Amino acid sequence: MEEQTPLDAAQQPTATGDMDPEAFRRYGHKAVDWIADYLSNAAQYPVLSQLAPGDIRHVLPAKPPEEPESMQQILADFDKQLMPGITHWNAPGFMAYFSNTGSGPGILGEMLTAALNTNAMLWRTSPAATELEQITLDWLRQLLGLPHPMFGVINDTASTGILYALAAAREAIPKLYIRQKGIGGRSDVPRLRLYCSQEAHSAADKAAIVLGVGQEGLRKIGTDNQFRMDVTELERTIEEDLAAGWLPFAVVATVGTTSTTSIDPVPQIADICERHHLWLHVDAAYGGMAAIAPEMRGIMEGCERADSLIVNPHKWLFTPMDCSVLYTRKPEVMKAAFSLIPEFLRTNESLGDETPNLMDYGNALGRRFRSLKLWMILRYFGHEGLAARIREHCRLAQLLSGWLDASPNFERMTPTQFSLVCLRAHPQGMDDEEQLNALNERLMNRINATGRFLLSHTKLHRRFTIRVAIGNLRTSEKDIRDLWTELQEDLVKEI
Amino acid sequence: MEEQTPLDAAQQPTATGDMDPEAFRRYGHKAVDWIADYLSNAAQYPVLSQLAPGDIRHVLPAKPPEEPESMQQILADFDKQLMPGITHWNAPGFMAYFSNTGSGPGILGEMLTAALNTNAMLWRTSPAATELEQITLDWLRQLLGLPHPMFGVINDTASTGILYALAAAREAIPKLYIRQKGIGGRSDVPRLRLYCSQEAHSAADKAAIVLGVGQEGLRKIGTDNQFRMDVTELERTIEEDLAAGWLPFAVVATVGTTSTTSIDPVPQIADICERHHLWLHVDAAYGGMAAIAPEMRGIMEGCERADSLIVNPHKWLFTPMDCSVLYTRKPEVMKAAFSLIPEFLRTNESLGDETPNLMDYGNALGRRFRSLKLWMILRYFGHEGLAARIREHCRLAQLLSGWLDASPNFERMTPTQFSLVCLRAHPQGMDDEEQLNALNERLMNRINATGRFLLSHTKLHRRFTIRVAIGNLRTSEKDIRDLWTELQEDLVKEI
Repeated sequence: MEEQTPLDAAQQPTATGDMDPEAFRRYGHKAVDWIADYLSNAAQYPVLSQLAPGDIRHVLPAKPPEEPESMQQILADFDKQLMPGITHWNAPGFMAYFSNTGSGPGILGEMLTAALNTNAMLWRTSPAATELEQITLDWLRQLLGLPHPMFGVINDTASTGILYALAAAREAIPKLYIRQKGIGGRSDVPRLRLYCSQEAHSAADKAAIVLGVGQEGLRKIGTDNQFRMDVTELERTIEEDLAAGWLPFAVVATVGTTSTTSIDPVPQIADICERHHLWLHVDAAYGGMAAIAPEMRGIMEGCERADSLIVNPHKWLFTPMDCSVLYTRKPEVMKAAFSLIPEFLRTNESLGDETPNLMDYGNALGRRFRSLKLWMILRYFGHEGLAARIREHCRLAQLLSGWLDASPNFERMTPTQFSLVCLRAHPQGMDDEEQLNALNERLMNRINATGRFLLSHTKLHRRFTIRVAIGNLRTSEKDIRDLWTELQEDLVKEI
Repeated sequence: MEEQTPLDAAQQPTATGDMDPEAFRRYGHKAVDWIADYLSNAAQYPVLSQLAPGDIRHVLPAKPPEEPESMQQILADFDKQLMPGITHWNAPGFMAYFSNTGSGPGILGEMLTAALNTNAMLWRTSPAATELEQITLDWLRQLLGLPHPMFGVINDTASTGILYALAAAREAIPKLYIRQKGIGGRSDVPRLRLYCSQEAHSAADKAAIVLGVGQEGLRKIGTDNQFRMDVTELERTIEEDLAAGWLPFAVVATVGTTSTTSIDPVPQIADICERHHLWLHVDAAYGGMAAIAPEMRGIMEGCERADSLIVNPHKWLFTPMDCSVLYTRKPEVMKAAFSLIPEFLRTNESLGDETPNLMDYGNALGRRFRSLKLWMILRYFGHEGLAARIREHCRLAQLLSGWLDASPNFERMTPTQFSLVCLRAHPQGMDDEEQLNALNERLMNRINATGRFLLSHTKLHRRFTIRVAIGNLRTSEKDIRDLWTELQEDLVKEI
């Protein structure tokens, strides 16, 4: 960032304090300027890092520094040595996976969170962190049109949240005392089963593994032609399992699957869960956020009946990683599954139900003050501003969908319900599926190699499908037009 | 922070972009100045928030904002409404739990991490994030004197890390295929058992619950008069369990327990684990960092034989929450327990073992770029600077220990091996344990109420014990002298 400067006083090898606050001020201003410039120029970087495996490793020293180094030098090395190894999730052309934005107010929130460095494990270890988490999550609940009361808690990721939710579901099975006795080696515990669709996120599989239910304890239900869970098959499968001595305990429904953003029929799934006394978990990590636009509330139909539900502000609510919200109508079950208070964490506040110790609702003890950034984002954009952004992303997805539908050489692979478009090139006359798969993989790789865009893929009925995930605040209509041009031009080169 | 300013252009209700980078620059500079001032004044705040439960909740609006609000107003409300609800982990008088510091270079690292907002799930989603994680964790391994190779991965907390480690331990049991088949309802899976001491962290209990082993699947082994695991009892218990049909699979040893920083006899525990083919996990979340001072390396004796080991840079290595490092000598087992690659995450890079996709080594898919702050801290302070700070904290703990030992009215409850001092008031002639417990609880509460210090407690053989945890970079010898004066003066008031 500029020439070498001397070490500050706190860097003497025998010093014992923190960086001097005035040095922090100086480098903090430099870092802010760097960030503002970076965000202004996000379109100038190749989206996908152009480095090969090992390139960073071979540049950096293999041994740690003995002596202190100047922050000037560290920031210069960050820029020179690490930046080429960054894949730019901030670039307007980033449309892979689910694209997102850690928006300005969110970055400011993370700065303050890092500075305060509180731990929101207990109410007393920062009352503001615990109470703000409850307030912002209740605001978000209202924005999503979910009923009151829903207890919310922030976790790092949806993978963590679904693990906690299904641990609660397991604990909710009557009379088994699984928390205390476990599930292994017991003649009174049948094999447990949970259900999700074939399109559900792999987080469900991982949760099944961790919980000791095993991959065989997760049955994947087939989907209809729009990749929605087949509820007839779900109910039939549950009945088969019951007849075969399995113990069904939970269903994971998805609102906005990762591959195609399909929406499982939550109301019918909720009916089945009620009939069979199963815990209903809804994974709305990406899709749920669409309900912030009032005209899209319908996507959450039935979710008011979920026992637990996840939405990820770090996916489509402009919040920096990490911030995943787990709502539950049964906080007492979450607590029964997890609360465990060793002497060194006992406190003498008499806390009512409205003032929880948030460590009691999951496995992790340490908890960052993540609600601060979310609070700043909700206030800075406001409900209307958030809805306008969600709406714009959906509009861009519809625009691209329209062009695809009108093209003789491309086809849309799924309905466009949110801001994801699933497509493939399908030139007239080319109908061999293997040939089409190879063509589309080459096409995607060619586009990604330009550095202007980053797309990712899935397979739908064995068909290689390109995903265009629109969710970045810097992506404009021009970017989508440019992408459409690129897709058409690159297809010509690949045929 | 000052008067109201108009909204920026990006805040029109129908706007679709991020905060304008120039607005970010302006508020970023304000936030940096606020942070620098806050860190300068950390001693001026009451350490423990003086608010009552609900105070924050009652001040903030119950409904989310419809319209955008100015960042000026949001920052002003942060200062006015939320700051009174912060417990100041940055205050030099914070000596509760394990005190820590999110040091200046760490805060700068978090700023850049939030701005880049990459996801280190796959190598390609930011090569620098994956490779820097490998490099910094190898640097840290060298600083701790641990053998090569040790595979490292950063998780949010040690609670998460121990869960992953024990999931790997469970998967390592031969021929049971637990990942696939689970552990419930199988006639070929006996009840599983793992072991830790009575002083181990409650994270072990939570992991046992989540894994389906259950609290009964965790046996707590007694300790000696210095709160170290009784290895004779451990071996006898394992043999009893084997005879009774249990299947022992793992032992958790602790280097630096939470209550007293006692050190379990890891070499002997490793012998037992070898004899019985058990996975050895070492929880060195706090204590392990002491090995950065070369003269203290002895505390890690035997840890080179651990299958997995956790150290927390966010505890005693001046790193902002969250950053917990899980090392393992058996990354292939971690991967066998967790790796699961859905189509939408498949990539075509041919990655060798040295360039992992870090999502494969745990449950969480999304992963922040946490290694950046750690890299900046290791370089800014250097090995010598880090060792000097660890050493100083230990010196302050010895100083207080010496005063306690010379006092007729206080007693030290455990050896002072790191930077934690366990003490209680024990006035001459007062020997009723209930009376002493009540006295010490009142004494601690009186000190905490001053706002100058925050201490926490534990119970040792049912004796209420005050913990003085020194680990904050702003804590000086004067603070420890002041605390000692306060302890003595407050005792007089409480007798």
